[in-house]
Amino acid sequence: MLNHPDWFVEIATDAGSAFALRINAKLHEERTPYQTIAIYDTTQFGHLMVIDGCTMVSTRDNFIYHEMLTHPALFTHPAPRRVCIIGGGDCGTLREVLKHPEVESVVQIEIDERVTRLAEQYFPELTESNHDSRATLLFSDGIRWIKDAAPGSLDLIIIDSTDPVGPAEGLFNTAFYQNCYSALGTDGILVQQSESPLYHLDIIRGMYNSLHTANFMQCHSLFFPQPIYPSGWWSAILASKVANEYGWRQAAAAACLFPTRYYNAVIHQAAFTPPQFFAEAITKN
Amino acid sequence: MLNHPDWFVEIATDAGSAFALRINAKLHEERTPYQTIAIYDTTQFGHLMVIDGCTMVSTRDNFIYHEMLTHPALFTHPAPRRVCIIGGGDCGTLREVLKHPEVESVVQIEIDERVTRLAEQYFPELTESNHDSRATLLFSDGIRWIKDAAPGSLDLIIIDSTDPVGPAEGLFNTAFYQNCYSALGTDGILVQQSESPLYHLDIIRGMYNSLHTANFMQCHSLFFPQPIYPSGWWSAILASKVANEYGWRQAAAAACLFPTRYYNAVIHQAAFTPPQFFAEAITKN
Repeated sequence: MLNHPDWFVEIATDAGSAFALRINAKLHEERTPYQTIAIYDTTQFGHLMVIDGCTMVSTRDNFIYHEMLTHPALFTHPAPRRVCIIGGGDCGTLREVLKHPEVESVVQIEIDERVTRLAEQYFPELTESNHDSRATLLFSDGIRWIKDAAPGSLDLIIIDSTDPVGPAEGLFNTAFYQNCYSALGTDGILVQQSESPLYHLDIIRGMYNSLHTANFMQCHSLFFPQPIYPSGWWSAILASKVANEYGWRQAAAAACLFPTRYYNAVIHQAAFTPPQFFAEAITKN
Repeated sequence: MLNHPDWFVEIATDAGSAFALRINAKLHEERTPYQTIAIYDTTQFGHLMVIDGCTMVSTRDNFIYHEMLTHPALFTHPAPRRVCIIGGGDCGTLREVLKHPEVESVVQIEIDERVTRLAEQYFPELTESNHDSRATLLFSDGIRWIKDAAPGSLDLIIIDSTDPVGPAEGLFNTAFYQNCYSALGTDGILVQQSESPLYHLDIIRGMYNSLHTANFMQCHSLFFPQPIYPSGWWSAILASKVANEYGWRQAAAAACLFPTRYYNAVIHQAAFTPPQFFAEAITKN
């Protein structure tokens, strides 16, 4: 094992690579009914949350992931009023969604309440919007919640989950996507984190296939750096019930009144560009 | 120290992070007059070249770096006939440059011949164009070579160097850039690797300042993933003697007849998009 008391190390076994952050201390560790959560104080990345040995969020670089999982989808939907977040317990995604004045309600369904309670303690900046009157925080099974949702009751479903193993496995298959499709209104959009473009093409291809089988008309990948995740390069899939190609509310994004650190209207367009090998490997419609 | 016989580990000390690749064996190590070069056989990244403890090139992911250091600049210059490469001893940059039929001559000036000889042995795919009749490989001091170059004798200077410490330090200052400016013709372009957008904003800011002081009219950064480099996210600066904003030979790139794995005409445009924090931190003209 590659380890040392001064470092947190995550090994990407299948990729033969590892990423490590130097730590001052492990601040917390607990076994919940769902997973093991640890919190570290790193020397240069601020606080770090780790679930089942995988880095989830660091103070330093979470802005990229949270902004890219939210703003491209919110500026793509013509009128995103009713949003739900599956997972997302650190509440960084919720915070970004609530920056959009068009949003009337956001329901966050996180299976493990301890993720949110620890985020409140160690990542207070991510949970600062939790008391917004438009936000509802539920701690239950997102798969079940989506299955029970009224047809057409949502404009946007954001799946901000861990990797497709363990508790999140059921968030990456056709049955779940069919329930999402049903819960979404006419212009509905689903956006989901989709792992590393370099390491996980098989997972991404499987997601495209399942989303198409579930009747989503159009899927596009978006790409962004995420230094603490395996390969340092990450992606999300934006799936739409209607085919509008890359149509989005560009003028609204360009006039965006809330602060961002990674996203802007030019990044929006750039982020949807697949590298050549990816375009060749993934069949898009 | 974070180490283990089954892993090569590079620690980014100032960033408090580390990246590691699992290895089958260390194949070679030598101390040259300039630096220490090691070659590893990794389990999933193919061969890995390490110089003074820093990852330089892996079989698996070098295509991103080499394509992005070359094709955007070559498709930006209106007629790139005379090219020089400073550094670039693994010859991957040279190979990409030679894919462009407009190129009439490429001189590569690498200070350490052993880098090229080891690349021939362990990265034969990168050196496959070394015998192209348009290519000249010199093993000498690139700083001196540029200083002695005839004024206006080059269309494109590519600086494919190690980090701005040790032998490469002199490739990141105003005096060197002034000599590049003089060696370039009217539409001349300089492109240089410029470290991590997340970790090295100070270096990048310094490069912009020095390039402007050396009279380059216009500087733009381009961004791309590079999993084996610190933060997994890398950049290059493209500096032009004339201000043409983002003008480039888009039709030629779109009709590109040679194979690429990362670059394409859409990526070209996308790669020049600065994230919000970068745009705010770096003053561009």
